[in-house]
Amino acid sequence: MSQVKAYAALTNDADLVPHKIERRNIKDTDVKIEIDFCGVCHSDIHQVRNDWKNSKYPVVPGHEIIGRVTEVGSKANNFKVGDLVGVGCMVDSCRECDSCKENLEQYCENGATFTYNGVDKDLGGHTFGGYSEQIIVDKDFILKVPENLDTKAVAPLLCAGITTWSPLIEWNVKKGDKVGVIGLGGLGHMGIKFAHALGAKVIMITTSPSKAEDAKSLGADDVLISKDTEEMKSHANSFDFILNTIPVGHDINPYLGLLKRDGTMVLVGAIEPIDPVHGGALVTGRKRVAGSLIGGIKETQEMLDFCGEHNIVSDVEMIDIQNINTAFDRVVKSDVKYRFVIDMKSLKEA
Amino acid sequence: MSQVKAYAALTNDADLVPHKIERRNIKDTDVKIEIDFCGVCHSDIHQVRNDWKNSKYPVVPGHEIIGRVTEVGSKANNFKVGDLVGVGCMVDSCRECDSCKENLEQYCENGATFTYNGVDKDLGGHTFGGYSEQIIVDKDFILKVPENLDTKAVAPLLCAGITTWSPLIEWNVKKGDKVGVIGLGGLGHMGIKFAHALGAKVIMITTSPSKAEDAKSLGADDVLISKDTEEMKSHANSFDFILNTIPVGHDINPYLGLLKRDGTMVLVGAIEPIDPVHGGALVTGRKRVAGSLIGGIKETQEMLDFCGEHNIVSDVEMIDIQNINTAFDRVVKSDVKYRFVIDMKSLKEA
Repeated sequence: MSQVKAYAALTNDADLVPHKIERRNIKDTDVKIEIDFCGVCHSDIHQVRNDWKNSKYPVVPGHEIIGRVTEVGSKANNFKVGDLVGVGCMVDSCRECDSCKENLEQYCENGATFTYNGVDKDLGGHTFGGYSEQIIVDKDFILKVPENLDTKAVAPLLCAGITTWSPLIEWNVKKGDKVGVIGLGGLGHMGIKFAHALGAKVIMITTSPSKAEDAKSLGADDVLISKDTEEMKSHANSFDFILNTIPVGHDINPYLGLLKRDGTMVLVGAIEPIDPVHGGALVTGRKRVAGSLIGGIKETQEMLDFCGEHNIVSDVEMIDIQNINTAFDRVVKSDVKYRFVIDMKSLKEA
Repeated sequence: MSQVKAYAALTNDADLVPHKIERRNIKDTDVKIEIDFCGVCHSDIHQVRNDWKNSKYPVVPGHEIIGRVTEVGSKANNFKVGDLVGVGCMVDSCRECDSCKENLEQYCENGATFTYNGVDKDLGGHTFGGYSEQIIVDKDFILKVPENLDTKAVAPLLCAGITTWSPLIEWNVKKGDKVGVIGLGGLGHMGIKFAHALGAKVIMITTSPSKAEDAKSLGADDVLISKDTEEMKSHANSFDFILNTIPVGHDINPYLGLLKRDGTMVLVGAIEPIDPVHGGALVTGRKRVAGSLIGGIKETQEMLDFCGEHNIVSDVEMIDIQNINTAFDRVVKSDVKYRFVIDMKSLKEA
């Protein structure tokens, strides 16, 4: 075990403060990573503030981790010192269940080990995330990051990116499809970029006309203002696929009306009750509503490789770790375009 | 035009009474059918009582029609006098939209012509259904009925049957799948029979232990009492597919917990608001909720052929047309095993 510097919440109502945490000794199958950048995900805030009633303190958040390999276990020879790598929302899983065997570790039937606030199989207690100098992770849960990308802007791909990429691929979004993206935040802005890069006609669906220009610069072909009932009518029954990134309960019925027969809306944000759905809205067009949770390691690697080829990264605003509490408040107010990323060099001075 | 005997509701609060209706003259592409049997669907009652606020009076219900061909238009030469045929929920559609071209006339983008209370393209006004001596229908909307089946028990296949068959086929239910059927009524009992015949392991999911014996005799391998939380837990995350036939709004969250990762629940009954769904129940297992509406003509014929091969019919209780109002009251109380069918010979005496 070794002690490393991190930023942690010590209780559910406290600011994040500098804190020492224990990292395990490197094992044969492990890779040690010096963290360069860590994205700030809304889940970090939910866990810090115990919104989901399952937090364990101290909470060291962070699951959009980019860094360089500094040490490699004897059996982790697919990595070498100096490699640019990433760690996302998971650091382990059972590897034996059907989901793990199908490379969908996020649905591990015995419970994936999440990067922070998961059960730490090695040290006991719970896992600590990426708001930290370094992290030690099993080789099978580490991603290779293309060197040609703007590294700091790659970090959010590990959560916001894969969360939107996975359903687009699972539901076979392809050239010429009409795809709606609801919500223009960390997830939504990646949904637009990916759907556009896959060749779809992308419509940003939003309540705010002010977001139109931004959405178009990100790759949207058009913007649909969901409060405009006439405009909504003109798009009725026309979408092949809708990616719904709204992070709270809401009324999905107007959006179901936009789907074509056999069209699918995937929820990736709301993990709380959504308003009553009219059965008829599904029945009369054989429409589908589904959920999707992050993505597996294999598809995360595929996404990163796709991003390397198509030069796709997130739009980020850089912060020092010392400003993390202010950043949290701004995330809650959706006051960020579109993801904060912590420059972890700042932790050395903390 | 010719006048024929029928039973009709003249207003939304009146009993059905004997009534004369107009049928069009036979056209080149038409087939005239003498009706032998007509099933009693819950939709008949909704339309008679104007529950969906779109009824037009007089309402002549009935869309589970079995009869013999008595006259054939010059271009309807795939039928001949004496053929045993069926008419279901639709008698026409635009035939030009994508849905029609894909043999999914029920989703016709210009609106299918429903068998009753649809827009009558020939006479104006609205269409009249099968509680009638005869019906004249375009050849493309007539089904051939296998002669080896118990004819009177075939009638409910035209609505209750196809409504449950279509989603089982669309979602590829196959040998070895674990399939749940929620609700044991006209639809549910057909869902059990079909899923069983397709080789699935069928679990009847019900609130009523009293239904266990019946469900097993219909083909269910087991019965799951949904009020028993321990039993529900023991089946958690284990179903490939769930057919939900509950005809009113309800809480689907406990049933979503039964689905495997990537499992689908299809709603075929509820066309009103269902209780709030927890987004997390969909997200954490990439689960899906979809709707499904009756079925296309091609798949209805495939279902009838399958029924002929596997000797599948509905469980029915025969009534005379004179008892239709009592039958309606009993349907509303779910007091029928599992479908009333009207012996239309009785109409001759009406």
